[in-house]
Amino acid sequence: MTWTLSSDKLDQQNLVIDESLFAIGNGYLGIRGNFEEGYADGYKSIRGSYINAFHDITEIQYGEKLFAFPETQQKLLNVMDAQKIEIFIDGERFSLFEGEVISFQRQLHLDRGYSDRIIHWKSPNQKEIQLIIRRLVSFTKKELFAIDIQIIPLSRIEEIKLFSTIDGDISNYVDNNDPRLASGHAKRLSVIDVCREENVNIVLNKTEASKLEVACISESSATVGYQYDVEVTKTGICESLTFPGGERIQYTKLNIYVDTLRHGQDIVKRGLEILQSTRAETFEEMLGDQYCYLDRFWGNADVEIKGDEKLQEGIRFNLFQLLQSVGKDGVSNIAAKGLSGEGYEGHYFWDTEIYIFPVFMMTNPEIAKKLLKYRHSILEDAKARAREMGHKQGALFPWRTISGTECSAFFPAGTAQYHISADIAYSYIQYYLVTGDLEFLKEFGAEVLFETARLWIDVGHYYEGTFRIDDVTGPDEYTCIVNNNYYTNAMAKWNLSWAAKISGLINSDQVTKEEVKEWHEAAEKMYLPYDEKLQINPQDDTFLQKAVWDFEATPKEKYPLLLHFHPLTLYRYQVLKQADTVLAHFLLEDEQSIETMKRSYDYYEKITTHDSSLSYCIYSIMAAKLGYHEKAYNYFIKTARLDLDNTHGNTKDGLHMANMGGTWLAIVYGFAGMRIKESGISFAPFVPEKWEGYSFVVNYQNRKLKIELTRTELSITLIEGYELEITVYDETFIVEKNGFKTSLKERDLIS
Amino acid sequence: MTWTLSSDKLDQQNLVIDESLFAIGNGYLGIRGNFEEGYADGYKSIRGSYINAFHDITEIQYGEKLFAFPETQQKLLNVMDAQKIEIFIDGERFSLFEGEVISFQRQLHLDRGYSDRIIHWKSPNQKEIQLIIRRLVSFTKKELFAIDIQIIPLSRIEEIKLFSTIDGDISNYVDNNDPRLASGHAKRLSVIDVCREENVNIVLNKTEASKLEVACISESSATVGYQYDVEVTKTGICESLTFPGGERIQYTKLNIYVDTLRHGQDIVKRGLEILQSTRAETFEEMLGDQYCYLDRFWGNADVEIKGDEKLQEGIRFNLFQLLQSVGKDGVSNIAAKGLSGEGYEGHYFWDTEIYIFPVFMMTNPEIAKKLLKYRHSILEDAKARAREMGHKQGALFPWRTISGTECSAFFPAGTAQYHISADIAYSYIQYYLVTGDLEFLKEFGAEVLFETARLWIDVGHYYEGTFRIDDVTGPDEYTCIVNNNYYTNAMAKWNLSWAAKISGLINSDQVTKEEVKEWHEAAEKMYLPYDEKLQINPQDDTFLQKAVWDFEATPKEKYPLLLHFHPLTLYRYQVLKQADTVLAHFLLEDEQSIETMKRSYDYYEKITTHDSSLSYCIYSIMAAKLGYHEKAYNYFIKTARLDLDNTHGNTKDGLHMANMGGTWLAIVYGFAGMRIKESGISFAPFVPEKWEGYSFVVNYQNRKLKIELTRTELSITLIEGYELEITVYDETFIVEKNGFKTSLKERDLIS
Repeated sequence: MTWTLSSDKLDQQNLVIDESLFAIGNGYLGIRGNFEEGYADGYKSIRGSYINAFHDITEIQYGEKLFAFPETQQKLLNVMDAQKIEIFIDGERFSLFEGEVISFQRQLHLDRGYSDRIIHWKSPNQKEIQLIIRRLVSFTKKELFAIDIQIIPLSRIEEIKLFSTIDGDISNYVDNNDPRLASGHAKRLSVIDVCREENVNIVLNKTEASKLEVACISESSATVGYQYDVEVTKTGICESLTFPGGERIQYTKLNIYVDTLRHGQDIVKRGLEILQSTRAETFEEMLGDQYCYLDRFWGNADVEIKGDEKLQEGIRFNLFQLLQSVGKDGVSNIAAKGLSGEGYEGHYFWDTEIYIFPVFMMTNPEIAKKLLKYRHSILEDAKARAREMGHKQGALFPWRTISGTECSAFFPAGTAQYHISADIAYSYIQYYLVTGDLEFLKEFGAEVLFETARLWIDVGHYYEGTFRIDDVTGPDEYTCIVNNNYYTNAMAKWNLSWAAKISGLINSDQVTKEEVKEWHEAAEKMYLPYDEKLQINPQDDTFLQKAVWDFEATPKEKYPLLLHFHPLTLYRYQVLKQADTVLAHFLLEDEQSIETMKRSYDYYEKITTHDSSLSYCIYSIMAAKLGYHEKAYNYFIKTARLDLDNTHGNTKDGLHMANMGGTWLAIVYGFAGMRIKESGISFAPFVPEKWEGYSFVVNYQNRKLKIELTRTELSITLIEGYELEITVYDETFIVEKNGFKTSLKERDLIS
Repeated sequence: MTWTLSSDKLDQQNLVIDESLFAIGNGYLGIRGNFEEGYADGYKSIRGSYINAFHDITEIQYGEKLFAFPETQQKLLNVMDAQKIEIFIDGERFSLFEGEVISFQRQLHLDRGYSDRIIHWKSPNQKEIQLIIRRLVSFTKKELFAIDIQIIPLSRIEEIKLFSTIDGDISNYVDNNDPRLASGHAKRLSVIDVCREENVNIVLNKTEASKLEVACISESSATVGYQYDVEVTKTGICESLTFPGGERIQYTKLNIYVDTLRHGQDIVKRGLEILQSTRAETFEEMLGDQYCYLDRFWGNADVEIKGDEKLQEGIRFNLFQLLQSVGKDGVSNIAAKGLSGEGYEGHYFWDTEIYIFPVFMMTNPEIAKKLLKYRHSILEDAKARAREMGHKQGALFPWRTISGTECSAFFPAGTAQYHISADIAYSYIQYYLVTGDLEFLKEFGAEVLFETARLWIDVGHYYEGTFRIDDVTGPDEYTCIVNNNYYTNAMAKWNLSWAAKISGLINSDQVTKEEVKEWHEAAEKMYLPYDEKLQINPQDDTFLQKAVWDFEATPKEKYPLLLHFHPLTLYRYQVLKQADTVLAHFLLEDEQSIETMKRSYDYYEKITTHDSSLSYCIYSIMAAKLGYHEKAYNYFIKTARLDLDNTHGNTKDGLHMANMGGTWLAIVYGFAGMRIKESGISFAPFVPEKWEGYSFVVNYQNRKLKIELTRTELSITLIEGYELEITVYDETFIVEKNGFKTSLKERDLIS
């Protein structure tokens, strides 16, 4: 069942992981897969409802605070809990941890956009029921979270009673021992109003410092008559619905979440309007809307893997969760954990541009455009940050942020990662190459490219005729604050030369000739370190002079190293958290010869821990490119099921969005060898040995192309749009309406 | 009056500075120069009484906490305030900010060890008095802080009333905007007992986390009969003494401070005993004791400058404040601000070993020995810290500490300064060379040298045949986390080779032959970066490739740079906070040719901001060595009066102890060119143009030598001990009982 994720687990450890895996959302609203009725006493649960970008501002504490250390950060808030529904069968509280669970199955329907739990339960007093609990967060009406419960009596029952709650007294989750989680600042949201209007329950909350407001507007209905009671407290509302016991009951709870970030100031009024327009639909009709939406989505985005159900499940699950998490409104982006948990405090990182954006760019460019618009919307903050960081010109994008200002409290692995500014520029260029949308480039992209180019001019300097960038951190956070990080320099070079190019292309009056010349020259003279002895690109000026980490003496339980070694210890050795130079070789493959890239790969692979979940996919892609097909496949497996199998051990805190994007990248850029360049789109595909074949769809220059591979054949079908030139390996084909096919050969690129 | 510091200032800005300058102390106890009677309403005052090493443990907050970041730190606490004494003249409260101040003068008597205020005051109601307020912190009875007040009626007065308080409700000073000061954790001491025993007032306080206790035991007496009353509150005691108005009154308040760090558990009993033995003495007798103690001290330590009163005042003031601040009990050391303020939270840094220790080593070796013993006492902590930092062997001393564990909350300019371990080793070696005390070396020094040598073996590695040290920070905190910092490598080399040497010298069974071989080899192969083009030692592997800071575009108000630029901005440029390579050239002058050192000096001087108060003295010393006599003199002036003239703008937070040591170093190691090596003691003196001459005393190998210089002559007198060989420039002399004289010539060492 590769369209359905299933679980029947009820043990503590798996339940909290399943809360992340079975999260539902739509990029605006996200609800963790918590049980409505709760858990056994003492079970740990991370109960969460999140609205993308809905945050408070919290103070950052430092033992020693230096100049331009951010004073505050943003923090995604857990908002009102509308999930809680308790069921009493003749006075006995339903719980999967009491009585007898005759059967239990929960499912997440990737093709239909909802989750359900189907339960056959016998109470301690032998009352028997079947329960079908379904929930959805609507893709077509983003404010809506609906729960639908069917109760089917299977023995004689006198009375069924539901208690349904909106709880406004909510805190964030705290774990002081993991640097990847927030510490402190748990309680930032307070209830400012609880009321009822025409049988609608309203809870209005406000953040402490950002002064944002969020309302949850909730209404219950049922197919069977009931006796109704309600209790309004200072922090929430609890309704009780008492049903006669004989009949099958269908109960539906509609919850509308509105906030002042998007819904104006009178959010209660707005929420009531939305509820009004929602009411007309039955839950089944809502499911119909979900299906339609997802049908379109999968039509653009589905990847089929023939011959491996586990991996098929992995790629579909990952794509679905990306869709559920990505902000589609221009004021939000995609958090490191999406809307599935609180890890990294709901912040947006470079993960978006390098790992996730390409997926949407190639499948749903309208969503990709929204991600770019978000970055443009924080450009003024990025400029201000550059000034604060002592730069006379340019924009320095924050390493982590929600509303635009830097939220990183540890600059060596935060603000020092200047590459994020080039990563963002890179994504604008990629988007232009894929869509050809010059208007968008003019209106949004150019300014970002120019301002980031200006940053590089200011941050870099000439030395012995080359342009150099000192004291930055590359993607690999196990080596911080270095000179001439290859990745950063190569990306900055790309940034500078494209800024120059674009200024001509759109004939911009925002830049002077002198500036363009300066950009050209810096790009041309950009120093890209190369080691003559090893004939590879060193990660930075002195990386290769350091001692190599003693991997043999490092037991498995010492990984991830960052949880067991001081940063200085890690910096002192050649040891990588994640792909760095190898990532540059993927993104900018024309900068080096294939031989150099192969030697780099061989060198860095040995010293990379993949302690970051952003690493496997890149090694998979580059292995594919270099003809290391088995490696490519093995790395791919690790990305595809990283969360499903909780291989990083922290899925409970949320799903690893970048890795999820990386799964798709590993297939499309890796196995299929897709590249988008000024010269056009190209493929260099192979089919992993264990597969019969695979297929996927990409959008390119207003065409929709279906790429299908079997063990012997590549076929490309033009689903939408005009004929197009495509390169496959070194041959160029014209894809017309009928598509084309070509046979695959054994290829070994390196020799 | 070069033995007396005077001030008649009463404006807000100068008063808070004078609180530091007029601080009195004895290395155990320190009292800021606050006014007993208080200030005008709204005046800022940093009221403080400190006991060296008396601290609480506070949590360190991090925005992102990584592995082995210290969880807690120690903080020197402000303890009970026994200073407060209010005087009422016929019901009018005496205040220097009301009525008429006919004359006011405060003085600190450097030769007599007390401070006084002599005041002629007329009240708003025209009552006239003279006040002589004297205070001392005893050098011979370290627990004693005594205040003596003489009130001389100068008009008809009916009644004089004193209110004398012991206030136990004390907080530390807080300024969140200066990284050099503590933030938060102000209130850490609570009163656990307030009581009276036979007319003695007792306040007992306890810290929140370290559970240390401190008691202040106080007793008042007067030469004239009085009516007595007392009020005991929950946090303090206030006595009132009512005198008839006609007579001259002498009132004395004895305050005994005892703590559980040094006085056992029953500190009140111990305090009462000490008070008992103190009572027998009059205040004048106590002053006599102070004078005797200081007479001996100055006999060993005085530096006379002929021809410049301002500088004479500077050097004497600095030496006196060092004596007042240095811990003499082996459980304490000398804090960056001594006991004169709360800057740097009372922590001990490398300042001790490199800037202050040599002063005591050459003048009062018994005090120097205590400083070394303190470091030995925290060796186990340093070993534990090395393990925590991932080292399999060795000891890593904390960058800042009180009780032995690392208190640095910003590792790039904290823990990363591994050089402190070599600095400590260096001071043990110097001490051995000066005293020849092999027993002490055996008992204390050897273990420190061995453990620090082991650290270097673990932290360094071989690369291309040289031994290298990656990812450390040198003394210059404007460039952090670098490879092969010249200073660190040179000091580590010294550390290693002396550890090897000492192991043979004392025939130690603590080390194996293999280990000694390893140390020898690492020292021999130590990589000391050298730039062929500039023919200087680069500060680190890549320092010279960076852009030079734009000094011309940096206005004066942007200094110190650390308060106006993000660390990354500073790291990116060639700009120094303080002497780094130049310091190495001073401490290890035989590592390089004089020509290389001169070129290094010329190069680094141009890019050094001296934003650290630890810089001028080193540049002065090296300028002297290199024949830059005018520079040497100008830098010296800056050290000599740095606090007296508040040139760094933060004297209010405490005096700059390292700089104060540096003043002495600049004369003795700088102008007089003294060096201590295995080959013996040598001088290479000159007399600054503006001076008639100067003289000082040093202790060397159980001799006491007086060195006197005039414009034409050097004379060395053997005050104590046997004859001795001394080198002056390149000539060797025997100093016998009669001493010797030699004439000074115009010398230009460089060419």
